[in-house]
Amino acid sequence: MQRIRMGLIGGGPGSFIGAVHRLAAEMDRQIELVAGAFSSDPGRSREAGRTYGIDPDRAYPSYEALIAGERERGDGIDFVAIVTPNHLHLPAASAALAAGIAVMSDKPLTATFDQARELARIVGSSDAPFRLTYTYTGYPLVREARRLVRDGVLGKVRKVIVEYSQGWLAEPIEQQGSKQAEWRSDPKRSGEGGCVADIGVHAFNLAEFVTGQRVERLCADLNRIVEGRQLDDDCNILLRFDNGAPGALIASQIAVGDHNGLVLRVYGENAALHWRQEQPNSLRINRRDGRGEIIEAGTGLLGADARAATRVPPGHPEGYLEAFANLYRDFAALMRGEGDASLVPGIEDGLRGMEFIHRAVVSSRAGSAWMELQG
Amino acid sequence: MQRIRMGLIGGGPGSFIGAVHRLAAEMDRQIELVAGAFSSDPGRSREAGRTYGIDPDRAYPSYEALIAGERERGDGIDFVAIVTPNHLHLPAASAALAAGIAVMSDKPLTATFDQARELARIVGSSDAPFRLTYTYTGYPLVREARRLVRDGVLGKVRKVIVEYSQGWLAEPIEQQGSKQAEWRSDPKRSGEGGCVADIGVHAFNLAEFVTGQRVERLCADLNRIVEGRQLDDDCNILLRFDNGAPGALIASQIAVGDHNGLVLRVYGENAALHWRQEQPNSLRINRRDGRGEIIEAGTGLLGADARAATRVPPGHPEGYLEAFANLYRDFAALMRGEGDASLVPGIEDGLRGMEFIHRAVVSSRAGSAWMELQG
Amino acid sequence: MQRIRMGLIGGGPGSFIGAVHRLAAEMDRQIELVAGAFSSDPGRSREAGRTYGIDPDRAYPSYEALIAGERERGDGIDFVAIVTPNHLHLPAASAALAAGIAVMSDKPLTATFDQARELARIVGSSDAPFRLTYTYTGYPLVREARRLVRDGVLGKVRKVIVEYSQGWLAEPIEQQGSKQAEWRSDPKRSGEGGCVADIGVHAFNLAEFVTGQRVERLCADLNRIVEGRQLDDDCNILLRFDNGAPGALIASQIAVGDHNGLVLRVYGENAALHWRQEQPNSLRINRRDGRGEIIEAGTGLLGADARAATRVPPGHPEGYLEAFANLYRDFAALMRGEGDASLVPGIEDGLRGMEFIHRAVVSSRAGSAWMELQG
Amino acid sequence: MQRIRMGLIGGGPGSFIGAVHRLAAEMDRQIELVAGAFSSDPGRSREAGRTYGIDPDRAYPSYEALIAGERERGDGIDFVAIVTPNHLHLPAASAALAAGIAVMSDKPLTATFDQARELARIVGSSDAPFRLTYTYTGYPLVREARRLVRDGVLGKVRKVIVEYSQGWLAEPIEQQGSKQAEWRSDPKRSGEGGCVADIGVHAFNLAEFVTGQRVERLCADLNRIVEGRQLDDDCNILLRFDNGAPGALIASQIAVGDHNGLVLRVYGENAALHWRQEQPNSLRINRRDGRGEIIEAGTGLLGADARAATRVPPGHPEGYLEAFANLYRDFAALMRGEGDASLVPGIEDGLRGMEFIHRAVVSSRAGSAWMELQG
Repeated sequence: MQRIRMGLIGGGPGSFIGAVHRLAAEMDRQIELVAGAFSSDPGRSREAGRTYGIDPDRAYPSYEALIAGERERGDGIDFVAIVTPNHLHLPAASAALAAGIAVMSDKPLTATFDQARELARIVGSSDAPFRLTYTYTGYPLVREARRLVRDGVLGKVRKVIVEYSQGWLAEPIEQQGSKQAEWRSDPKRSGEGGCVADIGVHAFNLAEFVTGQRVERLCADLNRIVEGRQLDDDCNILLRFDNGAPGALIASQIAVGDHNGLVLRVYGENAALHWRQEQPNSLRINRRDGRGEIIEAGTGLLGADARAATRVPPGHPEGYLEAFANLYRDFAALMRGEGDASLVPGIEDGLRGMEFIHRAVVSSRAGSAWMELQG
Repeated sequence: MQRIRMGLIGGGPGSFIGAVHRLAAEMDRQIELVAGAFSSDPGRSREAGRTYGIDPDRAYPSYEALIAGERERGDGIDFVAIVTPNHLHLPAASAALAAGIAVMSDKPLTATFDQARELARIVGSSDAPFRLTYTYTGYPLVREARRLVRDGVLGKVRKVIVEYSQGWLAEPIEQQGSKQAEWRSDPKRSGEGGCVADIGVHAFNLAEFVTGQRVERLCADLNRIVEGRQLDDDCNILLRFDNGAPGALIASQIAVGDHNGLVLRVYGENAALHWRQEQPNSLRINRRDGRGEIIEAGTGLLGADARAATRVPPGHPEGYLEAFANLYRDFAALMRGEGDASLVPGIEDGLRGMEFIHRAVVSSRAGSAWMELQG
Repeated sequence: MQRIRMGLIGGGPGSFIGAVHRLAAEMDRQIELVAGAFSSDPGRSREAGRTYGIDPDRAYPSYEALIAGERERGDGIDFVAIVTPNHLHLPAASAALAAGIAVMSDKPLTATFDQARELARIVGSSDAPFRLTYTYTGYPLVREARRLVRDGVLGKVRKVIVEYSQGWLAEPIEQQGSKQAEWRSDPKRSGEGGCVADIGVHAFNLAEFVTGQRVERLCADLNRIVEGRQLDDDCNILLRFDNGAPGALIASQIAVGDHNGLVLRVYGENAALHWRQEQPNSLRINRRDGRGEIIEAGTGLLGADARAATRVPPGHPEGYLEAFANLYRDFAALMRGEGDASLVPGIEDGLRGMEFIHRAVVSSRAGSAWMELQG
Repeated sequence: MQRIRMGLIGGGPGSFIGAVHRLAAEMDRQIELVAGAFSSDPGRSREAGRTYGIDPDRAYPSYEALIAGERERGDGIDFVAIVTPNHLHLPAASAALAAGIAVMSDKPLTATFDQARELARIVGSSDAPFRLTYTYTGYPLVREARRLVRDGVLGKVRKVIVEYSQGWLAEPIEQQGSKQAEWRSDPKRSGEGGCVADIGVHAFNLAEFVTGQRVERLCADLNRIVEGRQLDDDCNILLRFDNGAPGALIASQIAVGDHNGLVLRVYGENAALHWRQEQPNSLRINRRDGRGEIIEAGTGLLGADARAATRVPPGHPEGYLEAFANLYRDFAALMRGEGDASLVPGIEDGLRGMEFIHRAVVSSRAGSAWMELQG
């Protein structure tokens, strides 16, 4: 099988996420990183190219050069993965799509809701696939959770609690040399949301992905805890889903001691489900009769989506990289005209995420007024 | 040592909480149940008296009779424990205090905030002690958590998340013969709050007890999930503490499969603490440097309050009844003029709880408007 | 209901277990401590009597005086609880039984297997009840585990692993003033076993109680880890049950950082069960088809024995004291001629425990030779 | 960087472990699978070659053909990974080494201890590297555990408990078409050990790797639980380490409901460590003073070995495949003449594993006699 050729936009020296995308994309041998615009500094881009082990000629100094250069080759890239700060998502994606090159973009979709709507229009009028890495939907048991809701095991969804707790921004490390923190706390590069845009949007997407319900309204309290920070580093948001179920989304980047605490709880009429990203290989189902069940990844009890997303037998833990690789494998299937489009978030999911961020910011500014999501 | 004599108001046949109060009160042999007005039905009150093993003459048909009867005895009761539905808290407590009899009341303080203010006035002008069983403050590690915050281990408190999840009202069991559910879902007996008054107030009290911070404002979303229910059975409340820290209080009685899921997380500048009522004998502290610590009940590392609240060595789990007994033991000490009044919630805590309930109800009715607590 | 009158032998000042027995015995109001021989020092016995709040005349200087004194009273004790070091179990129990007074004895039965056989003869020819506090069989979920095995949920038992890990003797605290450690490490008072007699025997009893299988043979490795210690402080024992199933019993008192780590795992043909004393309110069942189930104390799914042993609703943790109280409540029922004798360990269980200790010591001395249990 | 070229021996259709080795080896882009002898059936080998995406000419029908074919190429393989049943390890490894091709072999080293000694002689006289995939030593926190012991954090090691519980052979699936079970339960292909050779040896290696102590003696009880099975499917082994510390190794493949339950506990004078493979990203340290610590993968608290073995930040779980990849990455470093040889198990570790298996089998046959390991 011919591997799909990937170009990376962003992911230069010092970036952690570039290496993760490469590793995840290549894990199943269906994709190969062959080119990149790793940095706007030509020397640093070449250096990164060497680290990634690609042809030096294909380490470009800009995404424009990448797209132009690859179009001229017979063996040019099939898609770009965009892993830049948010403000570059729109121009990079637009350029790729204009050249007929598919896009796998990091989240959130763009820096602003306006940009998101513009990108949605561009994607809508392009034939090239556009997808988004809401990574956590790649976990086998997240997909199993979605199946259980779909299959009616929970009955009507009655309440949803989703949390995302991190502590890495508990100090102003953006002023202490952290590149990661720097752009995320800069409105020009991150957009109008801080914590809500960086991780809140993951939590939002996870809740909608698993429940199949859409958030209809929200009432947000966004906070800047660390002095001097321009964007929110903590957010607490009341939710109302379109079937009337209430919910809460709790996220923070100042939750000292927490690492990547994404947790989802969905309570239905007949059962509830509990999932924690930090222990992703088990899913707890509590039945109305008092029985608690533990479902473990890899067992024969799982549905098709979860089984397909698992590489090793039960008891052999899989983690974040495998979840990420699942998204890329499913993306590769879509590129080949196969696969299940519902498994890989698309432009609508990206657009909804941006509306979520925007409405949360507006709600919070308005003193936690309820705002409707219209998308 | 002469045991303190206890009269029970409420706790008749079918009541679970009466037996719990008796057991907790007597556990340390400092208190003895000797009388009661267990039911307004004289026969049922006598029957309960037999079950409790008290003198048949001291099983009264009403709290008025109890108070009158006991006053005439040389060996009359020293205090009453009130375990009736909420609407009787005020009249029963008032009658006891008027007779110079101390009161240990179940929570919430009363059925309404108005009643609470009235009771506060009565308590204020009475010499007899008045205390409240916010049970969960009796756990050794809750007291240790309070100490750690006080001692500055966490640094400035930055965020508080407190949850209380139950599932026992996931179905309309108040229409299916459950006495417990019946009065709790009846506004005339419960008051204006349902879930928020029954368990939300525990969560509220726990957060204030441990952090030493007071909730300054709240923004509430109270829901009636089960059809036909008149009071909220689910609530999600944004909080702001008086030091500016944000918070969230998430409670539900329709969280199917959850039993008594009271969970507190406090994030400070330097460390965070995590405690779960269902596994009450360990407390997790996460330090800013990435180190997680587990503190277990009974070890020599604990402060004086936690040590005093522990009866057995580490590894021998203590639970709900022992926590409850700790409150009674501390109450007995106060009755003897000893002890630490800050360990047993008093009228101010009860009044604050009622204001919390009231503001939450009003906020929710006003479309989740922020409301200030003035108490 | 008339309470059963209890006398305590042992449990003087500095003893932790005396207070625990009193608390457990009285928890359900069916038993009352009224007398004791708390110490062989008359002054210390009187002092303990005051602490326990009993009539000063009934704080005796010896068990002989206790038995003689109480026989003369119309309201004399109905039974003695023996909580002395092991070497006094036989004489104290014999004296009580000879006077027609029932006995609830701490474990192990006696100091030596010879003494145990003698006591078994005495019990056999006495009409007074004799029972033993293997405390851990009092936990609701231990009783549920027994029921599940009995009801065939596990199928044929294939393997049993039972562990008991403590760390409190990791240092030679018997030389540093610890009374508890002193007698336990003294062969004259403890008998021929150290760790194996103090906690190994609990693990042994628990395994037999739950599985309904009897250990047929064992192969033991007993160790003295802390220098200067005369008795084993660590033991690892291979087991063979009478249905042919293999097993292992791992116990230690030098397992630094472990508190009271009693853990049982039973693997059957169709399912396995896992229980941990330190989190006693949940029981895990793993089915052959890969499904894991969590059974929580207090739910309606439990069998009659477990339900009867539970005082509070699910989610309100019960612990060690309640388990202990269950044994006493069941003992009280036996005293009244009611109840289920299989729930409270008796002389046969005590005798088997002593044979286990003896065979383990002999096996270890013989270089871990397999030894048969004949009892 | 030129990738190291890998040939796979074994791993044909239906094999799970072949794909795992490929994925792990290629994860960090330092190794590339280019050839293989996937099956002794030429058609099946070619088919597997297609699945792996390699040049059809390099899918050979035998390891002899693989070695011969690759030697003739300028771009021939640098090493073979041997993933066949045990009985082929010796001939395949010998042939590769004779051709100057390095070897990365699955465990156990060979089918018999005699073969192991022969292979050790061959390796000793060869210049080509020979290494073994005891996978679990690749976990970051296993390496951290080793560091903590080395650095004296635990003090003198006093007791070691290592367990490996699986349930997949709880039924005779070797008679029901399971290829994996078939060869493992066939003495001609597996060797003299069943469970002890398949997973017991992992547990043995892990204990020695982390503690730095060597097992000096063992006393084994090997069992065949499932009727008709020729090799042990359950084993319980008493251990004595060379510093005098006792230990126990408990392994089973009939532990119904357990998946891959490898658990290590090491108790030292000053602290103990606990690690579970199924939740590999945290390590618990219990200090003598009662403090429990949780160390999480990826944090700055870890030593160099653990940090180097981690690809993502804390809270982003890594698992089995990443641990496996760590071994391959370290192997690649050794191939380049770099790296730390102590991180990748070598021939001595393989030989010790085989002696362990052999002595356990002999000990068990001799009625659990203590046997010395001399290697």
